[in-house]
Amino acid sequence: MTCVAGGPGAETAPVFILVGPQMGENIGACARVMGNFAIPELRIVAPRDGWPNEKAVAMAADSPVLTAAKVFDRLEDAVADRQVLYASTGTPRHMTKPTVTAREACSRARAEMAAGQTVGILFGAEKSGLDNAQITRADAILALPVDPDFSSLNLAMACGVIAHEWRAGDPAPRGYSPVEDRATQAELDGLYAHLHDELDRAGFFYPPEKTPLMMQNLINLFARASATVQEVRTMRGVIKALAIGRGKARVSRD
Amino acid sequence: MTCVAGGPGAETAPVFILVGPQMGENIGACARVMGNFAIPELRIVAPRDGWPNEKAVAMAADSPVLTAAKVFDRLEDAVADRQVLYASTGTPRHMTKPTVTAREACSRARAEMAAGQTVGILFGAEKSGLDNAQITRADAILALPVDPDFSSLNLAMACGVIAHEWRAGDPAPRGYSPVEDRATQAELDGLYAHLHDELDRAGFFYPPEKTPLMMQNLINLFARASATVQEVRTMRGVIKALAIGRGKARVSRD
Repeated sequence: MTCVAGGPGAETAPVFILVGPQMGENIGACARVMGNFAIPELRIVAPRDGWPNEKAVAMAADSPVLTAAKVFDRLEDAVADRQVLYASTGTPRHMTKPTVTAREACSRARAEMAAGQTVGILFGAEKSGLDNAQITRADAILALPVDPDFSSLNLAMACGVIAHEWRAGDPAPRGYSPVEDRATQAELDGLYAHLHDELDRAGFFYPPEKTPLMMQNLINLFARASATVQEVRTMRGVIKALAIGRGKARVSRD
Repeated sequence: MTCVAGGPGAETAPVFILVGPQMGENIGACARVMGNFAIPELRIVAPRDGWPNEKAVAMAADSPVLTAAKVFDRLEDAVADRQVLYASTGTPRHMTKPTVTAREACSRARAEMAAGQTVGILFGAEKSGLDNAQITRADAILALPVDPDFSSLNLAMACGVIAHEWRAGDPAPRGYSPVEDRATQAELDGLYAHLHDELDRAGFFYPPEKTPLMMQNLINLFARASATVQEVRTMRGVIKALAIGRGKARVSRD
């Protein structure tokens, strides 16, 4: 499915993205409840048991969402056309990242989509949820109000609760102005790769084993900033200029 | 668990009541998600496969809600101490009964509980949902916004969506004043039985096979009216007086 970023009204609901789901039953139950609440687009990243999955089919109760689901090997590809991402989590993550309720996320997403932006909601694997590197990519954390003493929410249940929240929500945007001209995740990935390569050449990553964490912190900063296409372009110019200034510039990767 | 009707603050959430659930897996999944969202009290009416149920245990993921669940043979007994009932349905029922969203139901229930009232939410069996006679007992229908073309919502998903809505809701009552001194379902059942017996003696039910439907219509009227304890007492006085007037009174059944 091709989603044209910025095409107003092109999508009727956020895209739900399951990252590394383990059990086919849960994928099928997600597709079923998405069908119940008319959330049409499901993307699945690296399902543990491969694809297609009979157990998913059995649990989906003929949901058209399962038939239309797209499977990806890598999260980057699954979110490439998304401008806005929410990361659903059951337990608080101590990250420097805004945390919103399901209602707030849906209200924001509604305003973002009304402004023609593409929105995705990430759901982690059953066992462990989204890892920090995955959450880092998101604009905000969508935290459900689970009891801290009994917080393990079934994956399909998380999808269902958010799907209902989307469908139950007020159709009018409420007091939230989305940033205009939002960059897609693919454009941001280009920036991150550019930044990584030039910092690497500059000897920034020391000790080298800390590279992933240092990159994660930088990515988190840009993800929080809700960068525009122009800002991404500007930042890439900044990186290039700084690198040339040190005589280390090379041709950009994309 | 004993619930004292009218004891302010005695309960922290509405009681969820599964009516004739078929699959243990769904009962367990309900208990799990109720635990996630800290809804402590589950009641189960006539579970198809008996009780206890191993599949329920397996799906409950050690939820304390399952351990504490109470099982009843009859719906009347399961709701006897409830003053307010909501009937959850996926598809609209053409009944003369107010229909509210999950959010409205939770907002109303919060106000009702703040006024010391006992609230229950009824969930029907997987296959068919609540039947009309069961819905008739409720003050209002809680309708989830499912796609009419794909409306079969999993039972546990319905519990989860409403449990999240309860937990996510604004803690302050909003513009809804509950009727004071609400009668319990047991008190209402006493009224209905009294009314039925006297009408029966008066030859009101004709043809006899229409009795259940005629009673259902009368019950629906009283359920919608959110009757108080005093009103129930008054109505019973009315019935008695009318019956005596015809020389047909007998000792009230309770």
